[in-house]
Amino acid sequence: MNYYKKSEQLHKRLKGKLEIKSKSKIKNKDDLSTVYTPGVAEVSRILAKDKKLARKYSIKSNSVTVITDGSAVLGLGNIGPYGALPVMEGKAVLFKEFANVDAYPICLDTQDTEEIIKTIKNIAPGFGGINLEDISAPRCFEIEERLKKELDIPVMHDDQHGTAIVVLAAIINALKIVKKDKTKVRIVVNGAGSAAIAITKLLMEYGFVGHNIIMVDSIGIIHHGREGMNPHKVHIAEKTNLKRVSGQLEHALVGADIFIGVSVANVLKPEWVDTMANDPIVIAMANPNPEISIENAKKTKIKVFGTGRSDYPNQINNVLVFPGIFRGVLDSGAKQITEQMKLASAEAIAKLVSKKELSPKYIIPSPFDKRVAKVVANAVKKVQK
Amino acid sequence: MNYYKKSEQLHKRLKGKLEIKSKSKIKNKDDLSTVYTPGVAEVSRILAKDKKLARKYSIKSNSVTVITDGSAVLGLGNIGPYGALPVMEGKAVLFKEFANVDAYPICLDTQDTEEIIKTIKNIAPGFGGINLEDISAPRCFEIEERLKKELDIPVMHDDQHGTAIVVLAAIINALKIVKKDKTKVRIVVNGAGSAAIAITKLLMEYGFVGHNIIMVDSIGIIHHGREGMNPHKVHIAEKTNLKRVSGQLEHALVGADIFIGVSVANVLKPEWVDTMANDPIVIAMANPNPEISIENAKKTKIKVFGTGRSDYPNQINNVLVFPGIFRGVLDSGAKQITEQMKLASAEAIAKLVSKKELSPKYIIPSPFDKRVAKVVANAVKKVQK
Repeated sequence: MNYYKKSEQLHKRLKGKLEIKSKSKIKNKDDLSTVYTPGVAEVSRILAKDKKLARKYSIKSNSVTVITDGSAVLGLGNIGPYGALPVMEGKAVLFKEFANVDAYPICLDTQDTEEIIKTIKNIAPGFGGINLEDISAPRCFEIEERLKKELDIPVMHDDQHGTAIVVLAAIINALKIVKKDKTKVRIVVNGAGSAAIAITKLLMEYGFVGHNIIMVDSIGIIHHGREGMNPHKVHIAEKTNLKRVSGQLEHALVGADIFIGVSVANVLKPEWVDTMANDPIVIAMANPNPEISIENAKKTKIKVFGTGRSDYPNQINNVLVFPGIFRGVLDSGAKQITEQMKLASAEAIAKLVSKKELSPKYIIPSPFDKRVAKVVANAVKKVQK
Repeated sequence: MNYYKKSEQLHKRLKGKLEIKSKSKIKNKDDLSTVYTPGVAEVSRILAKDKKLARKYSIKSNSVTVITDGSAVLGLGNIGPYGALPVMEGKAVLFKEFANVDAYPICLDTQDTEEIIKTIKNIAPGFGGINLEDISAPRCFEIEERLKKELDIPVMHDDQHGTAIVVLAAIINALKIVKKDKTKVRIVVNGAGSAAIAITKLLMEYGFVGHNIIMVDSIGIIHHGREGMNPHKVHIAEKTNLKRVSGQLEHALVGADIFIGVSVANVLKPEWVDTMANDPIVIAMANPNPEISIENAKKTKIKVFGTGRSDYPNQINNVLVFPGIFRGVLDSGAKQITEQMKLASAEAIAKLVSKKELSPKYIIPSPFDKRVAKVVANAVKKVQK
């Protein structure tokens, strides 16, 4: 089936995938006087006096904005706010369907870091959380970091942390299959964008050893002393690859246990896989075509294989993460999404695959597993307590 | 019934009066691939190439933001973004109920004119219109004017123009009752805020004679040469009160045919009404208590009496206006709300009261008259053609 054609038709027919629904009907003067003036003045007075009560009396209780500057949308790159709009709408649909979070898409007509920060701060009062989306690196780091500091509601750049959490969940389970230990495995992360960096950091938080991780960008292996790196890569170089291995992806892969791809299609050659350690785990998330094609992967010794694709087992999809995370913080009133919450979320997702079910073709629940958002939300709330 | 108490309970129970509804369900991989990736990429490419198509393929087709800085909310004044939130939600409910417009409330955490303008421009791509709300004068004038110039979607400050249109509609019909001519009647506008100024301008656009209009602020009658006036009042002084009458409200009223109050409760003394011309028309919109109480009004020679109150005939309520206006511009794709559209809207509302129905107790349709939004939208669309 041609999803492009089908999607084009769907969007043309719906003219937007979201609508606003009133929870309170206005049928007569009584309704009008309660929902709106004069009655609403009482609620206004209450919230003007104590803004914290907005979570009890207003849409702030359940609202998130999915906000982007359109600079790094899907695999399409910097297509601007209009191109980004249907993607943000889709994300809002997922928020609603999977966790009953009311998400509203905002597409920004600026790509200036300071203006983005200012604009998001200015519109924040009515929202209970901020889901940053599809903002290119390195701006996304500063934007998220600053907003986390300067706002009193949870802020998360999903491309970073949603992806990192679901990858961690997949790897926790994949390691059970190959019976390897997180403190010993060697990992290659191919790609050095925001997702790659977030994955690497979260893996280290979880107990994987930086020493054993090598990140590779389009130039080659990232190592201490390599010239011309941005501050984020310099930081990665300080924390990983302590042996200062240099060279290209193929050199990094020799003896590695895990390949994590957040890069582009077909960069992982089958013959390189055969230089990896036994029972290699390959998480190849380039979209829509993974770093190694499904046909090629089958010809190698890969033991556990995950991709971003919905038509193949082990779909590594952050829809497993963001609905439940925001459900959790909205319900608990948490002001931050902490590292502990992320780790607990990954563990909760991994745990949903029982020992009996666990297999190389089933390391991670399906995106349609209705239990996922709930267990993630509960994990988040438990940490919050 | 105590609407304050009732409203407080309603808001606490609902935790926000709006929710987001997905128009497209996601039940399986096929849905996910059509609503979201990979299918949505095709729509993104289309919109990235031609942003005008956002009106055909996205929520921009039917979305408006109801946006405020919380500086002039209801009769409560500058209560800030949190206090304003339930009011903006209420307005969004009205948009949906009366004209099926999807309105999303945004409450700004800034009251700086330039920052408000910049923020609204930054978030504009996903919206088909901007409804400015409850922003205090004189900032509201510059904000609206600049946004109208700098954005390619309709922008309207409802407190100004919604009010002006409904007042004009009421006066068109009231004049039929007292059989007076718009070019001859003398009008006193009490109040000099944004609504008062917008009413005065629209009356003049319609054919009322500036010569015959006197505006009164808290200091007294506005006239050419009065000291210490802001530029907007200076402008009004140049266009109205050509005889340079000075003094207080009671002096302005002598011989006047129409009193329009956008001020505060009980400032119109019954004995002053008796100095007005025969069959005076009094539109007293102070909220919740009008410029002359209903009891006092009954003791005077007032012929036609309108207020903002829902429990009395002739409720002058801009819910008669904004839903239909935005319905009209969203449907027609108009980039501006023009003076012609405003005049046509007022005439369309007035015309809904048939000759047979017209009486001093019925000069304006009820807010619940389902025909209103439709005829206003049609009037707007007709002008657009």
